[in-house]
Amino acid sequence: MRRLPLTLLAASLALAAGASSAADKATTIPQSAVKTAEQLRDKAMGDDTGYKIVESLTTEVGPRIAGGPNDQRGRDWAVAKFKELGYDKVYTETVTYPLWERRSEHAAIVGPFPQPLAVIALGYSAGTPKGGLTAEVVKFDSLDALKKADPASVKGKIVFVNAKMARHRDGHDYGIGSAVRTGGPVLASKMGAAAFLLRSAGTDEHSRTPHTGVTGFRDPKEAIPAAALSLPDADQLDRVLGYGKPVSIKLDLDCGITGTYTGANVIGEITGKKYPDQIVPIGGHLDSWDPGTGAIDDGAGVAIAMAAGKMILSLPQRPDRTIRVIAFANEEMGLFGGRAYADKHASEVSKHQLGTESDFGARKIWRMTASVKPSARGAIEQIAKVIEPVGVAYDPQHPGGGGSDLSQMHAKGMAALTLTQDGTDYFDYHHTANDTLDKIDPRELAQNVAVYAAFSYMAAQADGDFGSAPDAFKNDGARD
Amino acid sequence: MRRLPLTLLAASLALAAGASSAADKATTIPQSAVKTAEQLRDKAMGDDTGYKIVESLTTEVGPRIAGGPNDQRGRDWAVAKFKELGYDKVYTETVTYPLWERRSEHAAIVGPFPQPLAVIALGYSAGTPKGGLTAEVVKFDSLDALKKADPASVKGKIVFVNAKMARHRDGHDYGIGSAVRTGGPVLASKMGAAAFLLRSAGTDEHSRTPHTGVTGFRDPKEAIPAAALSLPDADQLDRVLGYGKPVSIKLDLDCGITGTYTGANVIGEITGKKYPDQIVPIGGHLDSWDPGTGAIDDGAGVAIAMAAGKMILSLPQRPDRTIRVIAFANEEMGLFGGRAYADKHASEVSKHQLGTESDFGARKIWRMTASVKPSARGAIEQIAKVIEPVGVAYDPQHPGGGGSDLSQMHAKGMAALTLTQDGTDYFDYHHTANDTLDKIDPRELAQNVAVYAAFSYMAAQADGDFGSAPDAFKNDGARD
Repeated sequence: MRRLPLTLLAASLALAAGASSAADKATTIPQSAVKTAEQLRDKAMGDDTGYKIVESLTTEVGPRIAGGPNDQRGRDWAVAKFKELGYDKVYTETVTYPLWERRSEHAAIVGPFPQPLAVIALGYSAGTPKGGLTAEVVKFDSLDALKKADPASVKGKIVFVNAKMARHRDGHDYGIGSAVRTGGPVLASKMGAAAFLLRSAGTDEHSRTPHTGVTGFRDPKEAIPAAALSLPDADQLDRVLGYGKPVSIKLDLDCGITGTYTGANVIGEITGKKYPDQIVPIGGHLDSWDPGTGAIDDGAGVAIAMAAGKMILSLPQRPDRTIRVIAFANEEMGLFGGRAYADKHASEVSKHQLGTESDFGARKIWRMTASVKPSARGAIEQIAKVIEPVGVAYDPQHPGGGGSDLSQMHAKGMAALTLTQDGTDYFDYHHTANDTLDKIDPRELAQNVAVYAAFSYMAAQADGDFGSAPDAFKNDGARD
Repeated sequence: MRRLPLTLLAASLALAAGASSAADKATTIPQSAVKTAEQLRDKAMGDDTGYKIVESLTTEVGPRIAGGPNDQRGRDWAVAKFKELGYDKVYTETVTYPLWERRSEHAAIVGPFPQPLAVIALGYSAGTPKGGLTAEVVKFDSLDALKKADPASVKGKIVFVNAKMARHRDGHDYGIGSAVRTGGPVLASKMGAAAFLLRSAGTDEHSRTPHTGVTGFRDPKEAIPAAALSLPDADQLDRVLGYGKPVSIKLDLDCGITGTYTGANVIGEITGKKYPDQIVPIGGHLDSWDPGTGAIDDGAGVAIAMAAGKMILSLPQRPDRTIRVIAFANEEMGLFGGRAYADKHASEVSKHQLGTESDFGARKIWRMTASVKPSARGAIEQIAKVIEPVGVAYDPQHPGGGGSDLSQMHAKGMAALTLTQDGTDYFDYHHTANDTLDKIDPRELAQNVAVYAAFSYMAAQADGDFGSAPDAFKNDGARD
């Protein structure tokens, strides 16, 4: 997932968004649809379809790095699963992206106190020369400190940025960690550094499972070796540096871009009986980072959306509008699936009723925000009333961004929600070997399915739209 | 550490131990010594010497597998640290052991669902043939189930024992895990298995850090490849097996015995002013397993004993008897340091006043048990009264075993305590990459130092002995 802090600016812009259409006829959800949504919600709360889906994906496919050996297997799984669940239409839309491969990675302090370090290469990292690279370490406590450094102090050295993150329910400190991870390597490269290390963008201070993730490198020519240390290893390196002697590290990364790869977004649809060309898009991303099995990032998101659709499929009749569940390709290395979808469907933005993606783990949803036209706020309040009993508070002050991949469609003008999960421990596991099925509580996952089933059904049955139109929300300040 | 469950039999034997000397003059601790011990205790509770020692060891030396590159560096560190702390006499006693080397390890499910598994080779494991070994997996839920299996069902296969451990304050479920780890590979080898895998002997069900540890292989000719899966990986393999299809694993271990190595126990002494040849031995083991930095196993034990001695060194005068702090060599691969010490000092067992070793982590001591002659029970009660205010309950019903290495001297007849630490989370980290400094709470470590300083000082000042004599406690049932 990507997630950046909301700002006060964002809040004020959100309130202004779509103000020009304030005179529209109010969008409402018919009472019969509200009642059905409540039934869907209650049924989903006691249903384990979502858990079974994520168990199936993480067990049968396992890690799913984009372009890796399980990319095709993941897509095959998704096609088969949509069909097994009874979706009306199952298809794929190709997505092409650079193929970056991880082969091996090792790091060790060479002196003054020789010892191995737990390390993981970052996405688009260059490899080191064969046999590794040894250089002195220069430490910075923040990205800003690196920005202010004299390039001469960095040239030829291994830059180590030791910025810390704390746990928060909305995960906002990931703004710190992801900025270091994406921007740090690019900056270090420009300053002439030999390599880049960061304290993992994570919060598991007792676990030696480093967090991978994408860098800002897009041009392989500018890439240098870039990797993350686990938090205890970052603390250890910091202690070793504290002795005041020069510290050298040997970094041996075998990884790099080897070409391009064509994968696909996998889509399952429940065809709307009244307005089949009007779409309620929900989803998650099918790719994962490779050290874990991608349970919370983002097998859970795929499972929540697939299972929500399954709840709706079990109704006696199809909803008025089409529910489109999208399992996106390659979110992790740069929103490729989301961007491909938005590019392909840009001209249909007005047909996208209201959408959002789940990509922040598997814990309970506690907050809903929305970017919709003012005359649809009443319908959002109707949705809020249905999901409030399962613990979701509606915050009308902030925008909804549609989640990571669907943020791209929101940027085109799609009305969007953000359904924020409890991310307190998300960055303990995210992008690490510990992103595995045991992190998912089936009951918490079921609450997510309940919320997605209820909202997407109500959106599909609404009398009226939520304001989707080209560029309708481009100044709402939503970041995901 | 090794730790096996106490039995009711043990309890009854403990009460009987030394009964023949019941008519001895009672051993007592002079009131002045009790008062000094209370002062030592109170000072140690607010002192960070122990924490600084374990920080120094884990930072400057890091992982310390016996015979590995840091074996010599660890000994050099211990000699220097004893001297820096002001010990009166610092020396080493050589210990020779097989040299087993870990070079690399990989495992993956080949079919039906290809994916890597987090694995670590066990001590004395054989390597696989170069390029790895692929075989079908056959699972057992316990060592007993494997014992009962038809060897034909195991021959040529990879045996997987998936026995579970739960957390307990006294860590008694390690009796399950360590039995599987030591006995399982030997049994599997005898039954003709190609290799052996176990669910790690640990309790960290959410962490993909497998637990290494020693096997029962002593003769390299009987060794087969043997390794541990992390708990989430064991659960994953179990789920994959649950599909009912044949599951094959590729195991690629590069490890094995390459010769013998001569290390040493490193000893620091505070020379007794009245009875310099009478010894109060305390200690920990200097070696560690290699994935972590050996903070809780057993840098903490070394630090507790060294720091307790430092407290006593800071008194205006030396204690009556000698305090001997021993940093044992190679506990992990078969108590080599403890056995060498006991062999070398067997004839001096009666000169060993009362001893114990710390090797169960760094959390607070909550229980004291003792194996002493009946006429020394009063002195033990005096010790108990001094350490009770810092949370230690005296259990007179069970024997004291002296800790892992000193169990060997206890077996020769040395009077011994067991000072049991809270081991609730010990097996979350023990023998894994997560055994690092951040697991140690400086205040809890200080409580250990307080208890060791107080007890060892009182033992050194006692009027009388605790019953050490050849074979004095051989039937007490103590297991550590």
